[in-house]
Amino acid sequence: MFYAFDLIGTAIFAITGALVARGKNIDLYGVVIFSIVTAIGGGTLRDLLLGRTPVFWIRDNNYIWVAVAAGLVTFMIARVGFIPRRTLLIGDALGLALFTIIGADVALAENTTPLIAVIMGTMTGTGGGITRDLLAGEIPLILRKEIYATASLAGAIVYVGWHSLAGTASLSVGISMLLVVILRLASIKYGGSLPLFLVKTEE
Amino acid sequence: MFYAFDLIGTAIFAITGALVARGKNIDLYGVVIFSIVTAIGGGTLRDLLLGRTPVFWIRDNNYIWVAVAAGLVTFMIARVGFIPRRTLLIGDALGLALFTIIGADVALAENTTPLIAVIMGTMTGTGGGITRDLLAGEIPLILRKEIYATASLAGAIVYVGWHSLAGTASLSVGISMLLVVILRLASIKYGGSLPLFLVKTEE
Amino acid sequence: MFYAFDLIGTAIFAITGALVARGKNIDLYGVVIFSIVTAIGGGTLRDLLLGRTPVFWIRDNNYIWVAVAAGLVTFMIARVGFIPRRTLLIGDALGLALFTIIGADVALAENTTPLIAVIMGTMTGTGGGITRDLLAGEIPLILRKEIYATASLAGAIVYVGWHSLAGTASLSVGISMLLVVILRLASIKYGGSLPLFLVKTEE
Repeated sequence: MFYAFDLIGTAIFAITGALVARGKNIDLYGVVIFSIVTAIGGGTLRDLLLGRTPVFWIRDNNYIWVAVAAGLVTFMIARVGFIPRRTLLIGDALGLALFTIIGADVALAENTTPLIAVIMGTMTGTGGGITRDLLAGEIPLILRKEIYATASLAGAIVYVGWHSLAGTASLSVGISMLLVVILRLASIKYGGSLPLFLVKTEE
Repeated sequence: MFYAFDLIGTAIFAITGALVARGKNIDLYGVVIFSIVTAIGGGTLRDLLLGRTPVFWIRDNNYIWVAVAAGLVTFMIARVGFIPRRTLLIGDALGLALFTIIGADVALAENTTPLIAVIMGTMTGTGGGITRDLLAGEIPLILRKEIYATASLAGAIVYVGWHSLAGTASLSVGISMLLVVILRLASIKYGGSLPLFLVKTEE
Repeated sequence: MFYAFDLIGTAIFAITGALVARGKNIDLYGVVIFSIVTAIGGGTLRDLLLGRTPVFWIRDNNYIWVAVAAGLVTFMIARVGFIPRRTLLIGDALGLALFTIIGADVALAENTTPLIAVIMGTMTGTGGGITRDLLAGEIPLILRKEIYATASLAGAIVYVGWHSLAGTASLSVGISMLLVVILRLASIKYGGSLPLFLVKTEE
């Protein structure tokens, strides 16, 4: 069940990765690279830091196959038609929610502290997007736009806090994921963001 | 034999790394950093993902010494004379071919699947160049120009496929490397590239 | 003693990380990310390459708490007043010196060669700043301005060389750190730098 959701999240992030390549003079091979990196970047960083090597996609190649397939299909569909932006944003919010909970869960299974589990959840949820933006030569969008990483962080805190108090349950998975999705979609609709950083310093 | 080629490939990539620093207001120390990162970046990423730590250059420092020496020599030669672009391109194609086969070979020795061996081959061949371009603040060139990563990928597929069917042999090493070099040099001469990604989306 | 200095260095680097976010349209969450990455980036890379996983801040969460606190405090102070640039530069030089020696020491404790200990010292001292600049979309400043990484390198060489000849002692720690701080501050005051790389090539 979790596994199926995990692969769906992988496909969604792979699609967003392929779309970032748009208009950047990037060839088919580059598009597939963007898809793979976006889909597995967060989990890879998590596994490296925790010392879970070989990393997850070396142990289970399905993640790679799904990312490659999603990237190729996106490439082809995008040549003949439109990809509805709304569908993608909702899918992306779902993927963010899923990867956040999965990342926190992996850390908890390694007996980390709650702090580290929260960090690993957020890192798994957002790491792929950060790597994608770095490769594309942009300041990672999640560092400056809307409530994105913050939604992931909130979901991870609720999930890990719940786990510390009462163990893992379907209910905590559902509620944490719902929180991420709602925060994310509300921020898109109402344009909310955290306070920006405008600093006075002597130059 | 393989080892000697490996060090030659290291030197070549170190030279290309030093040359990227050209015209960027980078000092001698930065040039050596570029040389090292370009020469060992791909293999380092491969070792981290496979869990082969400490990574290869910590176990065998010769890779570092060769990269540092190549970077310093490039720095000095470039101050007094020209570096023939043609020589460099041919050398780079050879280095790409070598690192691709070595990367795939390391993965196969760790009993990975063929898919992972192909990925590790291409990552070892192209990873240093990607890191170099990221450090230099550029979109990695290999993601958007000519047939570069694709040549590496083709060579890795032939080498790993051959290995799966009939084991490793001098013949498969030679043919796979030749394929990388020919594809790469042909693409430079005839300007071939994969289809670019021009997508229509509703904005 | 070492541990207290280590946490102080962590706080200082976290502050410089938060200040890079200045004027870049980055929200509170992003500022904390910059703080954490700058404070722990170098040591994290060192641990990954050496195979010391889980990395240090997963084993001891105090590094994270200190970095987060320093980032938040910087964010708040910067909104109401000035941060004296001079204080920060001196603090940064101290942090650079500390992290360099700690990084070299960790490597020596893993029985690496002197070359690797020097590299790990410099990487620990400068790695956080490099990651910070990459995230901010800039060519890492240490690759092109003033004597920064070079000061770290000089301190690491003296410390590791002393260790190889006569073992570690308080005296070698003090002298190596002093060397880093003096080189760094002298370079700020007198504007010294290594020779730049202006290359002639046929295009």
